Amino acid sequence: LGFEHLFEGCEMRRVVRFKPSRKRAEEIEVAVVGLGKIGVETASLIWRRDGLRLVGLVDTSPALLGRDLAELAGLERPTGVRVVSSIDLLDRTPEVAVLTTTSSFESIHPTLRRLVSMGINVVSSSEEMIYPWLSSPELAEDIDRLCREMGVVAYGTGVNPGFVMDRLPAFLAGACQEIRSVEVIRVVDASTRRRALQAKIGSGLTVEEFEALVASGRIGHVGLVESAAYLADRLGLDVVEIEEELKPVVSDRRVRTEFFDVPPGKVIGIRQTAVGRDGTGEEVVKLRLEMFLDAESPRDEIRIRGVPDLDVEIKGGTPGDQATAAILVNAIPLVMSMEPGLRA
Amino acid sequence: LGFEHLFEGCEMRRVVRFKPSRKRAEEIEVAVVGLGKIGVETASLIWRRDGLRLVGLVDTSPALLGRDLAELAGLERPTGVRVVSSIDLLDRTPEVAVLTTTSSFESIHPTLRRLVSMGINVVSSSEEMIYPWLSSPELAEDIDRLCREMGVVAYGTGVNPGFVMDRLPAFLAGACQEIRSVEVIRVVDASTRRRALQAKIGSGLTVEEFEALVASGRIGHVGLVESAAYLADRLGLDVVEIEEELKPVVSDRRVRTEFFDVPPGKVIGIRQTAVGRDGTGEEVVKLRLEMFLDAESPRDEIRIRGVPDLDVEIKGGTPGDQATAAILVNAIPLVMSMEPGLRA
Repeated sequence: LGFEHLFEGCEMRRVVRFKPSRKRAEEIEVAVVGLGKIGVETASLIWRRDGLRLVGLVDTSPALLGRDLAELAGLERPTGVRVVSSIDLLDRTPEVAVLTTTSSFESIHPTLRRLVSMGINVVSSSEEMIYPWLSSPELAEDIDRLCREMGVVAYGTGVNPGFVMDRLPAFLAGACQEIRSVEVIRVVDASTRRRALQAKIGSGLTVEEFEALVASGRIGHVGLVESAAYLADRLGLDVVEIEEELKPVVSDRRVRTEFFDVPPGKVIGIRQTAVGRDGTGEEVVKLRLEMFLDAESPRDEIRIRGVPDLDVEIKGGTPGDQATAAILVNAIPLVMSMEPGLRA
Repeated sequence: LGFEHLFEGCEMRRVVRFKPSRKRAEEIEVAVVGLGKIGVETASLIWRRDGLRLVGLVDTSPALLGRDLAELAGLERPTGVRVVSSIDLLDRTPEVAVLTTTSSFESIHPTLRRLVSMGINVVSSSEEMIYPWLSSPELAEDIDRLCREMGVVAYGTGVNPGFVMDRLPAFLAGACQEIRSVEVIRVVDASTRRRALQAKIGSGLTVEEFEALVASGRIGHVGLVESAAYLADRLGLDVVEIEEELKPVVSDRRVRTEFFDVPPGKVIGIRQTAVGRDGTGEEVVKLRLEMFLDAESPRDEIRIRGVPDLDVEIKGGTPGDQATAAILVNAIPLVMSMEPGLRA
């Protein structure tokens, strides 16, 4: 390191030669389990990321068996990494598995258990896994115990849940002496998103069809109550109940996207809220997620009331698809340095 | 945990009873070393914060010796915690010391060494300690080695450096697949701040007086190059040099505050930049700190260019004085869970 100080007129200037202090660690060996859209994007990012080595792809779908990542991700050259049907069939046991199968913690539990019992750290996009003690406290305890026994970490993350409405507000709250309430508003213009997301929010449905899907749990964003629970727990807010509401956004005019053409009076998206109240009924956690076609002013807003207040905006909002793969991959070195257990 | 699902009209509502999953840890015993403004505010916050126990106050100033925290902080009732002149005189060895003496890593090194060798974890507001490998690589290595030997952590933090221009942008960058550049702009309206800060930025000086203070290193913000180095290192940006500039902001009209009355043509504050360039001369880290009287639009802005881009604004900016004490105190449980060493 060298320092050079120059003074010119009324300004001070110095130039510092820079060399990062610490060497990079060895490459971390990683497998991806579940090769839907997020799994494939995550695998591609691992493939090109320094410090990580993609050693396996796992998916139970017969259609994917034997396929090279290059085929799935549209890469120019074959990677030599091909899909196998089970983690047991990998040549090498990875140090970390990225598990991108389903939202429900209960449904990933058997796979998660298998991975952890093999001594593999797990990063998962399972929405409930951001705070699995809420939906499945016994299964969460089981995984936590097994992780400690095996000396590995299981960690749920993603853009939402995992970032915008939970970990980022919690990080920001680190600048506060006291916190009375946390409010997060995320508005996504679904017109700019892929077909699957436009469908997932009910685009083109009648209100009755929307209602039926809500009743069967097949519509809406998974993880909002988990984000609220995470915030309450992490920030020590005295939340005793969390109320979640899901409503359709109905269009008053025709709305067209690349994939949908919705007449007035039909559904163009969702407005979903989760509110955590303390014992006096005070709303101390307020999360509002709006995802609909042609939404104006897409953004993420975080409002912390306390000492001091903090008002933060991510202009245009955090782009969901790109950020999800990024957050999963950036979590890989992170879990290697965490204490063993199921971590929130 | 109980779940209750209610359907009403076209909306879905459910109420989840909530109980945080994990018990609070035992109280952490903490001492504060250095009882300037930040030290006193930090000690007060520790005093009233659940989960922490203030077990000592240390300052070498004879004027403070024997004083109760209540006197120093204007609390209503005595705390029973009184200032002693040395860490060796405390009744109990704390688990964590908050070290709030000076900005320079070299000057805190002896105290830091003493604390670490007693097996005490250290959180410090020393500006250079956010990235001490830059100013004092040998001393940093020494402390890192000693920390590992003793199984404790030494960690520098604060609002800036420590949050706005380094750890927060790095946290946000966790949502990016690739990062080309990071820019942070912090504008502080110094008119709203305490006298010491208004003086520190040169309010009321002539340009010549300002220059002389710059030359002797007695003016300007300490830690900007450290923030740039931190970002470069943490985000793996190929920075080979960091250039820092400090210029006075000169008023074109009379500016009055509670403490200063500055005629036109004199200094009302600073504009300080640190730019990290890669081998090709590309500016990959750009930090700009403006602190002057009557600054318009105070704010913190973070602009990440990569995949995806992120544009974040903290409206009005992070309030410095309140946030600094908060960040120091919130770091206390954090360091207890970190791996031993000097951590950045």
